Amino acid sequence: MAGALTGSMFLAGEQVAGLGEPFHAINPATGHALDPGYPAATSTQVAAAASAAGEAFAAYRSTTPQVRATFLRSIADRIDADPELVDRVHAETGILPERIVMERARTSNQLRLFADVVNEGSYLGVRIDHGDTERRPLPKPDLRHRFIPVGPVAVFGASNFPLAFSVAGGDTASALAAGCPVVVKAHEAHPGTSEIVGRIIAEAVAEQGLPAGTFSLVTGPAPEVGLALVTHPAIRAVGFTGSRRAGLALTTAAQNRAVPIPVYAEMASINPIFVLPGAAAARAGQIGTGLVASALSASGQLCTSPGLVFLPEGPDADALVVAAAAAIANAPSGCMLTPGIATSFEAGVARFAAVPGVRPVARATPDPSLTSPCTPTLFETDLATFRDHLADLTVEVFGSVTLIVRVPNETADWWATLLPLLEGQLTATIHIEPTDREHAIDLLAALEVLAGRIIVNGFPTGVEVNDAVIHGGPYPATTAPATTSVGTRAIERFLRPVAYQDVPGDLLPVELRDETTGLWRRVDGTFTR
Amino acid sequence: MAGALTGSMFLAGEQVAGLGEPFHAINPATGHALDPGYPAATSTQVAAAASAAGEAFAAYRSTTPQVRATFLRSIADRIDADPELVDRVHAETGILPERIVMERARTSNQLRLFADVVNEGSYLGVRIDHGDTERRPLPKPDLRHRFIPVGPVAVFGASNFPLAFSVAGGDTASALAAGCPVVVKAHEAHPGTSEIVGRIIAEAVAEQGLPAGTFSLVTGPAPEVGLALVTHPAIRAVGFTGSRRAGLALTTAAQNRAVPIPVYAEMASINPIFVLPGAAAARAGQIGTGLVASALSASGQLCTSPGLVFLPEGPDADALVVAAAAAIANAPSGCMLTPGIATSFEAGVARFAAVPGVRPVARATPDPSLTSPCTPTLFETDLATFRDHLADLTVEVFGSVTLIVRVPNETADWWATLLPLLEGQLTATIHIEPTDREHAIDLLAALEVLAGRIIVNGFPTGVEVNDAVIHGGPYPATTAPATTSVGTRAIERFLRPVAYQDVPGDLLPVELRDETTGLWRRVDGTFTR
Repeated sequence: MAGALTGSMFLAGEQVAGLGEPFHAINPATGHALDPGYPAATSTQVAAAASAAGEAFAAYRSTTPQVRATFLRSIADRIDADPELVDRVHAETGILPERIVMERARTSNQLRLFADVVNEGSYLGVRIDHGDTERRPLPKPDLRHRFIPVGPVAVFGASNFPLAFSVAGGDTASALAAGCPVVVKAHEAHPGTSEIVGRIIAEAVAEQGLPAGTFSLVTGPAPEVGLALVTHPAIRAVGFTGSRRAGLALTTAAQNRAVPIPVYAEMASINPIFVLPGAAAARAGQIGTGLVASALSASGQLCTSPGLVFLPEGPDADALVVAAAAAIANAPSGCMLTPGIATSFEAGVARFAAVPGVRPVARATPDPSLTSPCTPTLFETDLATFRDHLADLTVEVFGSVTLIVRVPNETADWWATLLPLLEGQLTATIHIEPTDREHAIDLLAALEVLAGRIIVNGFPTGVEVNDAVIHGGPYPATTAPATTSVGTRAIERFLRPVAYQDVPGDLLPVELRDETTGLWRRVDGTFTR
Repeated sequence: MAGALTGSMFLAGEQVAGLGEPFHAINPATGHALDPGYPAATSTQVAAAASAAGEAFAAYRSTTPQVRATFLRSIADRIDADPELVDRVHAETGILPERIVMERARTSNQLRLFADVVNEGSYLGVRIDHGDTERRPLPKPDLRHRFIPVGPVAVFGASNFPLAFSVAGGDTASALAAGCPVVVKAHEAHPGTSEIVGRIIAEAVAEQGLPAGTFSLVTGPAPEVGLALVTHPAIRAVGFTGSRRAGLALTTAAQNRAVPIPVYAEMASINPIFVLPGAAAARAGQIGTGLVASALSASGQLCTSPGLVFLPEGPDADALVVAAAAAIANAPSGCMLTPGIATSFEAGVARFAAVPGVRPVARATPDPSLTSPCTPTLFETDLATFRDHLADLTVEVFGSVTLIVRVPNETADWWATLLPLLEGQLTATIHIEPTDREHAIDLLAALEVLAGRIIVNGFPTGVEVNDAVIHGGPYPATTAPATTSVGTRAIERFLRPVAYQDVPGDLLPVELRDETTGLWRRVDGTFTR
């Protein structure tokens, strides 16, 4: 029955209450606790969810692509249709309803995209090398290759995407598509949202007749709940989006298991932007206002929020800063996701402000009606100050803080000495005009090594979900730079290759058989279907 | 000048002596030290090699595919042509010359295979999703995806493949193909072989006009040399084949870096074989002799050597054991790779023999002329003993030891309770006849979860190098179950994806441009070239 929040979790199809201490979501706009209370899962309950996922694995992974695709679409349709979801997300996160509707569309579209991925089948990576019994000195075996699911996956809900990277978010969608049962640890900031979506998935599991352990949802504010999940032997991989501290704690726990498992953690990024001189001369005002629009998006609570801008010093820099300052001063103060994040944000702003040589340029007007306001803030500084306070100024502040660094540009490759100062990033952006082309080539090549996605003449927020996107990057942006958590390639995190040598045709998985058609495969070195 | 061994390493094109204590290779057949001495690299020299690789990266990765392919083929041709190589490998490892010639062919063919991979280009994983400026509510960006090399790679030479998995072995070939500079840590058992091959690569680097830091070779028997390499900031990935202890030590060091990096370690495996009743009835003798031939291959010093056989008890099992015992009793005693490995092998045999209920079935006759003999040994036991001494009986003994476990087969799925007793494996093998088919289906599905390669009616030794092979598997067989160290997919370990958003056509890497043809790419969801 939709709508009646009960404070429950879902353990392998059973709606049950946690047996630990209850906690409440807090409305970040009002500071008030939201009903119902959510009793936390005990470690025994977490273990039950993980064990059920392990027991469901063999049956769930042997479902047909059609069944898994229908399952994913069923979840998507139910999410789109739920009458209570948007209101509860808004109450628990402070995100504005129009943005929640967009995030809901992204969430259901991600589920449908992975339904398409499953049906299309090229993610199976089928390769066939036929044997040759006549080869000398040794006969050549018949070898066939495909990917299989790794096993049960633990997914951690993210504070900043209560739908698109939480219970039925990208990690869950790609893991379920791969054939992996999923146990979600709900983010403690939005347990009601999690219950709604968890019930939707549990209903879809039942409707499709899938093993009950295909999906479970556990709750709890303490790190112990997540650690119990990650260290359970049945769990084979972990998807996480959040802070560096939490991501590394889970990674360490996963590495210290008897059988270590991968943690796909997407963590901090400050998403540097480089404005080249031609672009600054041609479009200073436009870049300044575009920057602020990007920085204000979701009150800066996005993995790809632009935190750092490098700009050649001079009058064009002045113009850009003036435009940005005007835009930010006129902007509304938004609401942070939680009171705790609001406190951390203010501490981060204060840390910037305390650095000698860092000047506040403009700040949005705080909204006195909010208990957890985000007051977007723009700082500027010079290169020497930036270098001298690198540790303070290159740490991600979660929320809308952007630092503009004015850099002397006596040489054309003025940006070259900046790159070694930066850690791995999700994105890097450049603004260029045709006159910048020569130096842009070298800068683009250098940025490839720094970031997972490179943007020209745009801004880093707004992540398209498709085949070509990468939402990932070198450490510490992620713990797994070879992967992406957004887009169709996200499914690869939850797959493992197996080779089949001289397996008789009638014992082969159907997608590996000679007579199978319609599936893209690499056969004797050639792509074909 | 070929042939004159000097005791040198190669640091970014310079032939230099280590500045540490010298060590000598030992001829394992005679126990005698081999000249010249090889002074070990100091940590300063290791750092110089890694730094040079870091400096070479930008230029080496921007070479054309044609240049890298020519470079790889040049190494292959020089290896095939070297007049001293086979003799030195034989002196340092005890491997028989006819087997060395086969390994040399595998080594040069691997290099040529990766030259083909580079030229063919589909490993770049190009994906193009065209933009749409008219899309509402937001315009759709143009996004393009390719893989780039991760950066300098550290490769550890393996004792058991002095050519095919050492200085110019599979890890080096795939890393150089990807565009990664390589620093090899020579295995201390074959420094002369390493010098010959290191000189070959250094000459090929110079001939092709590549950056000097594209390749270095460092030597030294102490763990410190390898640890200095793995912990150097310029190194971005590690390829290793060897013992679990060494592999995990490198993995821990890599995880504890300021920027953690992946260690692709291929470690222990006992490669279980399951003989189903129909196969035992039809081919007991043939399976017994085939098993021994596989177990004797390279004196059992192969990652895929069959260490464990499960067999339904009864007269067919008797016949299989009799055939295997006859084969092994008539077999020559081989030579172990090093005196230390010979000592460990004897300790492993003694550990098996000390387990009450484990019976020695047959042993080859020791060769009194060898100082480091391998005396292949066959044991058998019953299921209860196997279960009661699992830790002792499922640890890999490097060398030719095979344990046959006779299992009661009152039920058709007699094998089902065995699987949870086993750790992750490189391979799993089943022998079946048509009458076994029904149970083979379930067993094959269960083995997919256990191993990286599944073989039917064959034996695990002999790894084909092609598109479809997987030489990898769940932990502890490897530290990276999603990857392979053999075959064309091995290159993927040394690649990282990058997405390009709205990058103008003339600034895009050539393989991402619309006008490029002849390369397999996924464009707007469809594979095309």
